[in-house]
Formats: sequence, C-alpha cells, structure tokens
Amino acid sequence: MGFLPRFADEWVLTKILKATGQAPMRLVVTGGADVSPSGISPVATVVIKDRNTLAGILRDPEVNFGDAYMDGKLEVEGDLVRFLEEVYRAMEHAPRAGKWYSRMASKWLDLWQDNSPSGSRENIHRHYDLGNDFYKLWLDDQLLYTCAYFPTPSSTLEHAQIAKMDHVCRKLRLQPGETVVEAGCGWGALALHMAREYGVSVKAYNVSREQIAFARERARAEGLSGQVEFVQDDYRAITGEFDVFVSVGMLEHVGEAHLDEFSEVIHRSIGDTGRGLVHFIGRNHPRVFSRWIRKQIFPGAHTPSLRSALNVLEPKNYSVLDVENLRMHYAKTLEHWLERFERSKQQVTAMYDSRFVRAWRLYLAGSIAAFRVGDLQLFQILFTGSRREPIFWTRDPLYADTKAAVEDAIPVVENVREKVKWTHAMS
Amino acid sequence: MGFLPRFADEWVLTKILKATGQAPMRLVVTGGADVSPSGISPVATVVIKDRNTLAGILRDPEVNFGDAYMDGKLEVEGDLVRFLEEVYRAMEHAPRAGKWYSRMASKWLDLWQDNSPSGSRENIHRHYDLGNDFYKLWLDDQLLYTCAYFPTPSSTLEHAQIAKMDHVCRKLRLQPGETVVEAGCGWGALALHMAREYGVSVKAYNVSREQIAFARERARAEGLSGQVEFVQDDYRAITGEFDVFVSVGMLEHVGEAHLDEFSEVIHRSIGDTGRGLVHFIGRNHPRVFSRWIRKQIFPGAHTPSLRSALNVLEPKNYSVLDVENLRMHYAKTLEHWLERFERSKQQVTAMYDSRFVRAWRLYLAGSIAAFRVGDLQLFQILFTGSRREPIFWTRDPLYADTKAAVEDAIPVVENVREKVKWTHAMS
Repeated sequence: MGFLPRFADEWVLTKILKATGQAPMRLVVTGGADVSPSGISPVATVVIKDRNTLAGILRDPEVNFGDAYMDGKLEVEGDLVRFLEEVYRAMEHAPRAGKWYSRMASKWLDLWQDNSPSGSRENIHRHYDLGNDFYKLWLDDQLLYTCAYFPTPSSTLEHAQIAKMDHVCRKLRLQPGETVVEAGCGWGALALHMAREYGVSVKAYNVSREQIAFARERARAEGLSGQVEFVQDDYRAITGEFDVFVSVGMLEHVGEAHLDEFSEVIHRSIGDTGRGLVHFIGRNHPRVFSRWIRKQIFPGAHTPSLRSALNVLEPKNYSVLDVENLRMHYAKTLEHWLERFERSKQQVTAMYDSRFVRAWRLYLAGSIAAFRVGDLQLFQILFTGSRREPIFWTRDPLYADTKAAVEDAIPVVENVREKVKWTHAMS
Repeated sequence: MGFLPRFADEWVLTKILKATGQAPMRLVVTGGADVSPSGISPVATVVIKDRNTLAGILRDPEVNFGDAYMDGKLEVEGDLVRFLEEVYRAMEHAPRAGKWYSRMASKWLDLWQDNSPSGSRENIHRHYDLGNDFYKLWLDDQLLYTCAYFPTPSSTLEHAQIAKMDHVCRKLRLQPGETVVEAGCGWGALALHMAREYGVSVKAYNVSREQIAFARERARAEGLSGQVEFVQDDYRAITGEFDVFVSVGMLEHVGEAHLDEFSEVIHRSIGDTGRGLVHFIGRNHPRVFSRWIRKQIFPGAHTPSLRSALNVLEPKNYSVLDVENLRMHYAKTLEHWLERFERSKQQVTAMYDSRFVRAWRLYLAGSIAAFRVGDLQLFQILFTGSRREPIFWTRDPLYADTKAAVEDAIPVVENVREKVKWTHAMS
C-alpha cells in the first residue's frame, strides 16, 4: 500500500467521516485502515482501493468520489441509494469543509459550461445525443425523461408518465384549437399528447438533433405533422404568439445568468393574456448541481430555488396560480429508471463501457437519494398573464375523476420513517 | 366656483383622465367642466363638488381621491366596484405620473407606521379594536376576517369560511394530539375549529385586546379552554415548540422590514421537522397598500409578492409543498362583506359617522376591484421542515369528498369576460 503507515490512512478516513457529519458508513482502504462512526451501525461499506484514490477524495470529494466510483477505484458494498441517502442527510448538517475551494471551482464550471446559445447546444448535445437507443433501454415507451406523476406509488412508469402529461394539460386547461409553444420538448411525447388528446396546435423547440429527428418521425407516423411542428433550435429562437407556454424539465438547463432571457421568451410568446406552466428540478436554496454531475453527466445544469425561479415571472407581472412540489414522484420515477438501467447493464456496457455504466448508476442512484432527502425538489408552477382571469375556481376539477383511484391507494408517502396515520379527519 | 375659468377645470380633468390611462369614466366638476374619454362609454360619473377638492386630487390622487370620497366632496354615480375595477385596469398600463412623490410619501409612511412591537400594537389597535359589535354587523357569524374558500361561487359566506378552515387543516393534515401555534388569530375561530374538529392543542397569539377577550370567552363557552390558549401578545413573543405553525392573514401586518423576525419565529416554533401554512394577501410585484388605505384603514399594511414572501422560508431551508392562489375567492368574500355592510349602514353611521361609512365602503369596494383585476392576490403557502417528508403523495385526498359538490358547480370563474368552455378534456 505504499510508504505511509496505517495510522495515516486512519487519520484521513476519520477526517472524511467527520466531513460527512459522521454518516453511518464503514470506510476501508484495501489492505489498510478501517473506520466507522462509533455507536451507529453502518448502512454500507466504502472500499477505497488505493492510497492515490484516498488522497484524491481528501483533496476534492465533490468530484473525486464520483470519478473514483466511475473508475472502479472505489466500491460501495451495500445498498447504493440507501448509502447516498444517509450521506446526504448527514452532510446537510455537517461543517462545510472546503467550501471556498468548491465555490471557486463551481464558478469556473459556470463559465466553462455557460448556457449561451452555442454553449447550450454543446451542453445539451453531450447528454441528450448519447443515442436514442441508449435511452430506449431504460425510459418508458414514450421516452419521457422528466419526473412522472404517480396516481399511486404502485402505478407503472408508463401510466405515471401519461398521468403527468394529463396533469400538466389539465392544470393549463387546454382547449381544442388553442396554440401552445413548448420550450425543450425532449423526444416530443408531451407535444404529441397535447395535440392528440386535447386538440391543440403545438410548436415545440429543442436543440438536440437526435431528439428532434425522433419526434418528427413519430409525428409523421401518428399523422400529427400538421398539428405539431418540431423546431431544432434554442428556446431563445422561439417566435410567434401563442395561448399557452409550457416547459417541462428545461429550466434546469437555462442557468441563473440566463433567467431573464427565458422570461423575455415567455412574455414574447404569450404576453399578458396567456397562461403557462414551468416544471423543473429546484431546491430549497439556490444551488448548482454537484460539480461531478456537471462534469460527467449534465454540463451546464443548474437548480434554482422556487424564489429564484420566480425571477422569471415576477418582472413580467405574471400571477402565480399554483405551485406543486412533486419531489417524491421524481424519486419514484428514478427508481424505475435505475431498475430498468440495471436490467440493461450488459447492453449499455456493450454500447459504451463499464465506466459509463458506473457513472450513470451513480447519477441515477444519487438523484433518487437527493429527491428522497429533499436535497432536490420538483416544482410545477402554473401562471397566467396579468390581464387574464385565473384558470380555475377551485382545483377540484383536477382531481374529480381520480377519486376512485385515491380511495384504493395507500395514502402515505413511502420511505417515511415517521409514518403518519390516516384519520377520519382527512377523509 | 371661484375665479379660474371653466377651461382650467377642463385642463385638470383631462390631465386626471390621462393619468388613469383613459379609464372609462365621466369626470364632472359641479357647475363646471365635464370630461369623458372619447370613443368609450363611461361606466360611472365622478362628481367633484368644488375646485379645492379637484386641486387636492391633482396634487396627490392616491390619498386625496379617497379622502374626498370619505368627506362627501366627491361622489361616484354608478356601480362603485365596477368603476374602481375599470380604473385599476386602465391604470395598470398608464404612464405613472407622480411616481417619485408617491414613493417618497410611501417611505415616510413606512417609517411612521413601522411594525415594531409597539408600532404593531398601535397599528393593529387602530383597525381591529374598532369594536366587536361593528365587525359582527357584516362578517360571518364566527367573525372570520380573512379570505373564505367557496366550494362553489354560490356557497354562503358562513359555509365558505368553514370550508376555508377545513381547507387549511386538511392541507396541514392535522392529527389528533398534535400541537399548533397560530400567529394572528383574530377572534379565534380557526384555533377553536382546529381544536374542536381535528383534536389538536392550539396556542394562538394576537395583539388585539378586543379580539383576544372575545376568543377567550368563546373558548370558555365551548369548553375548549383546556385545549386552546389565547395569548394577547405580539407574534415575536411566541415561545414553545410545536408540530405545526399556521398564520392566516397576518403576514400583511408584518412588513418587509420584519420578515426575518417572522422567519425566526417559525423556525423557533417548528424547527426542521414541523410543517406550516401561511395565508396572506400578496401581489404579482412587491408593493405596499395604497397610501390612502394605510392612512385611513390599515396602518402598517404591506403586501409582499410571492417571491418576497419566500424570504421567510428559504433562509431556513423549508420546502414549499404547495402554493394556491385564491384571489377570486377574496373578491367573492368581500362582495358578501360589502353587501352586509351596506345593509347595516344605518347602525354603522350611528356607531361612528357617515364619513366612516363612506371610508369603509370605499375600502371594501376597492378591495373587491383589486382582487378582481389581479392588483391583489391571495396566496396560501404550505411548507415543511427540511428533515420532514412531504405531507401528501398527491393532492387528491384534499378533494376526495368534494367531488359531488364540484359536479354540481358551475366550473368557471365568474366575471370572466372571455368565458372558457368546459370540455370533456377537463372532466
């Protein structure tokens, strides 16, 4: 194991344990030290395979833990999601070591991965153009790569993605003949659903070449090309006037520095009389994604707080009608994705390599953990222009036909330690 | 009419009309000029009874229009609410004259009416201690002086106030045996309702002497004194730890300068594991109430934007679960209040005088108009501590037992010009 004595490893592991706020894990250096927090039974064992890796983690844990896992120089023995959950929970209240370094490095990444039109193109290309065949292996059959809406925790992923699209359309109360613009349309499922099921015309934008090609093909196959126009371009290039603006899972790619451009696009599209919905991954506090996620998975990604996202709407005098937080639904969505991903592990390895598989496993597992502990949130904001009446008198109609489903459902959040009883008071 | 020639009046009236963005009203000076916008049929005639009053309105319309109305030196012939609605709508897009003066005068009022503990006591006393007998004349039978929740637009005010209390309790998912702290409890209706119907213990704070005396008496009469403690004190004096924090209609009296104190109180009371609901009058933009309202009706009042209200929650890492905008429900609530107020006009005149009656009529009518046009909004924010799971899996349970009511209801917002059709897509 090199020249340093065993107690040096021990000192480093103890320091790492402290930095995580004494998370319930056992830390082992292969053939070397072995440390766990006292009085807590560990949920997993982290095996660090050599001293260089250990030194790297000590230097910059935010990036090097992930890189070491990806390179197979670090193994987590035990439930990966559960382990990450416990680490996030413990770290929330831990003393922040290396905050200064992390902040500087993060600023540097912000500049490097800036979401200017050309930067966005590059950032989006790196993630979304990995190949439709790859995403088909583990997303639902319509390729929705955003948080689903599970009427009950045991709904299937396919059902939950359709329920999500309906939830969005119903909140917006789409009417036949209306016009909708969509910023960031993925593989086109929502645009096609709105056109097919609600009779609206949709102009949908996306910079990803592969996604747009797929969406256009699907529109042709469904005979919806006349009703849905897919445009391969940046959201800033949106032109035209519409009744409705919708954006599901794109605000994360806009970035704090460009929120005002996003705001301008909305106002240019629907003015003071339209309505809109923005669905995005957020946080209780504004914060960027971890530097590892931005380095290996999502270049340019950014998670605004609800307050910061309102910078998009407030300057244009939009009225917020409804905000819904669906973070447990994203945890559930990601559980399905991870399960399907693991089942397709061999195919993914053949397409890329095992490093890629390990990186994506860590990303999916880490996201489940982050949504479960509340490090990430999922917000849907419904809004109207200042010269328009609210869309609903009450929200009852949104729930009118799901009553039967609800009565059958287990009405408690899963993974709740402190289970809350369902009493007559709520019925 | 004095020495100035008639065309001087005309010049002033034209200037006023312009400042309102050519609102559809006829402006008349008794025995003098008579002006209306061209090409629009006026919804009301404003009769200004003398030239001093006219000069006052020209100088400082925000305060002097209201004062002149109150003093009977100005009459509005026609539907007062409709008139104010049209003026607000027109003014929203009018060039802002006198903005500088208004802003300075507003800052001065902020200082003068600051909501420090002693300032709050004085501010609250001036409005809420006008006498319980006065409020009994026009509020519902339980004296709720906040926005009701109308299951359908034709629900009675009494029913809608109970529905509001249940809506709040259900969002919070109160469980028997839990503890609740209420900041700003009015005449105690919500605290008593939570204790009686949901089996919780409540500690409820209010600085208004008359309201607390009434609430205590009611708790005794209902045999709930053991379960509900009414404390005559400022929200900043709240002590103890609780499962739930609730505040309905008090944030408006906190003021921008004291939001951090409000935030501290919440965190002190429920920490990172509790949950809470804040219900308040807000705006699309942060703005104070009109100076007239603050001078004659609500000293110290302030209406934050949703974004600015989130300054209460974000620094303490609270997760926003749900935001609901109920502005049309406040317009409806105020319609009921104004109607009852007008029916009790003679009693109110006997209690105070006709100036008081006119001031309150203008305040109630102006508030209806402001909620209708969207100049005011009503937000309910539901949140949980960072170490707590979300309260619901979906929001269905909130609506489960109201399905029948919904199906009977007219599912469109009243007073909508552009009526939206209800299609199968929404059912």
